[in-house]
Amino acid sequence: MRIGALEAGGTKMVLGIFDEEGHLLEDTRFPTRPPAENIPEIIAYFQSRGIERLGIGTFGPVNLKKDSPEYGTITATPKLDWRNYPILPALRDALGVPCAIDTDVNAAALAECRLGAARGCENAVYVTVGTGIGAGVCVGGRPVHGLMHPEVGHMLLKPNPKDPLPQGICPYHESCLEGLASGPAISKRAGVSAEKLTDGDPAFTLEGEYLAQMCVNLIMTVSPEKIVIGGGVMEREFLLDLVRKETVRLLGGYIQAPEVTARIDSYIVLPELYPISGLIGAWLLGRDAGEKIKDMLRFGD
Amino acid sequence: MRIGALEAGGTKMVLGIFDEEGHLLEDTRFPTRPPAENIPEIIAYFQSRGIERLGIGTFGPVNLKKDSPEYGTITATPKLDWRNYPILPALRDALGVPCAIDTDVNAAALAECRLGAARGCENAVYVTVGTGIGAGVCVGGRPVHGLMHPEVGHMLLKPNPKDPLPQGICPYHESCLEGLASGPAISKRAGVSAEKLTDGDPAFTLEGEYLAQMCVNLIMTVSPEKIVIGGGVMEREFLLDLVRKETVRLLGGYIQAPEVTARIDSYIVLPELYPISGLIGAWLLGRDAGEKIKDMLRFGD
Repeated sequence: MRIGALEAGGTKMVLGIFDEEGHLLEDTRFPTRPPAENIPEIIAYFQSRGIERLGIGTFGPVNLKKDSPEYGTITATPKLDWRNYPILPALRDALGVPCAIDTDVNAAALAECRLGAARGCENAVYVTVGTGIGAGVCVGGRPVHGLMHPEVGHMLLKPNPKDPLPQGICPYHESCLEGLASGPAISKRAGVSAEKLTDGDPAFTLEGEYLAQMCVNLIMTVSPEKIVIGGGVMEREFLLDLVRKETVRLLGGYIQAPEVTARIDSYIVLPELYPISGLIGAWLLGRDAGEKIKDMLRFGD
Repeated sequence: MRIGALEAGGTKMVLGIFDEEGHLLEDTRFPTRPPAENIPEIIAYFQSRGIERLGIGTFGPVNLKKDSPEYGTITATPKLDWRNYPILPALRDALGVPCAIDTDVNAAALAECRLGAARGCENAVYVTVGTGIGAGVCVGGRPVHGLMHPEVGHMLLKPNPKDPLPQGICPYHESCLEGLASGPAISKRAGVSAEKLTDGDPAFTLEGEYLAQMCVNLIMTVSPEKIVIGGGVMEREFLLDLVRKETVRLLGGYIQAPEVTARIDSYIVLPELYPISGLIGAWLLGRDAGEKIKDMLRFGD
């Protein structure tokens, strides 16, 4: 059986064809344009490959309530052409195969939790730190969907008193995670593009502290067995070690689990499926589409 | 079938006998003393009532890993007599009935989520604000167990610049939730016992803000469908409204769900099963003890 996977991102659409065992048989990508242009090319690609299932990881916000008439519809995105676009119904109706959808970051979290850096964990968090900051939280091996999927990025943090930009750059919140620690926040604070900073730049000390505050609050709230941090900003690998050290310091000895106290290097980790965590997650969603009973019994296999 | 429920708290042991439908047939309580004194009286009570199942909600920390040899053992508690005490094995071996255990706050969260203020929700958080601050997070109708059960109390917050006690009173962390917003923190800041403050005291403005920061971070992280806040401090009901207003303000319009924007009064709510949320949760745990398959299929009934 061929399974289609679509990672619908803010700048590009990544399409893959997998077999049931998860081998990526082929893939392609298109720049993200309005749905009137993107959707026909996506349909044509998947139709010509004879897929029998489709999984979608999409930029959001997207309606994920299965009992809602708007299930699978993108909602209040700043991309006006995509606002209120029913991406799941459009693809399902055209392709006539079972389809499943989640956010791009939840798809990536699912992939890292089942097959990547957090495999074997029931509860894990995947965070991507780049132009924005987003996270998928898995509990019981599955991404958490609650009222919304606010994705951790706007968690409120405590600004460092020495931060020249303590309010951050978020239009919604003072001193939230994304406003303080996204790539653009680093650039704004430094007065030069984050990519141009050298590894020793003091901007990264603050970055490490803010990402560590995020880790602490994740540990205090959902107690993941593993925190996976990826995204463009984390391509500077020294930063990961800063985050680990600062997390242990901020925890202040409160958490006595050896996973944190003695083995922080294998607790806060980079993704293993980068850069296709999201595409693999879409494959997992597609593979399980329409197999509700089997999925429910996963832990009883 | 008679089902025993034990809420093992820091100051008292509450014991109840329920039927299968959840009617509380009788209950009693003992002051918390060392296990050598408490455990025999607990066993005698339950034995004389002929219970066939037992559920336990206990103070922690407690080992909740079912595959661990220390499952059901209290771990690093400051109550030295109880440290490393195998409360679940001791009661199960003496009573010879299926037993289940969780933390007291997770038991209360389970009860509020299934039968109380958050009934009908898959994902909800129950917080208790008193001498300490603790929370149980339910996802898919069940309390989340991760690496630990750190219970939200030590989430890091942003101190208000006008707070005369911006570091809080926690021995582990600067400006964590419990250190800034527990009953003793209110008392320390005010210089008089929190119980003696009048409702209009400025201390409660700060309290409302800190509990609202907690709500925001819960919304950003686990996106609950309902936040239930109880405990001694919340017996001042005006505080709930402060928390609601401040939560909406801090969210800054970022979360567009009408549950939050238009119906905050039914989103952040008081518990409905107070003061026996924990005991009812222990009954639910006991009722389901040993019924793994049935529990797994709960959503497929």
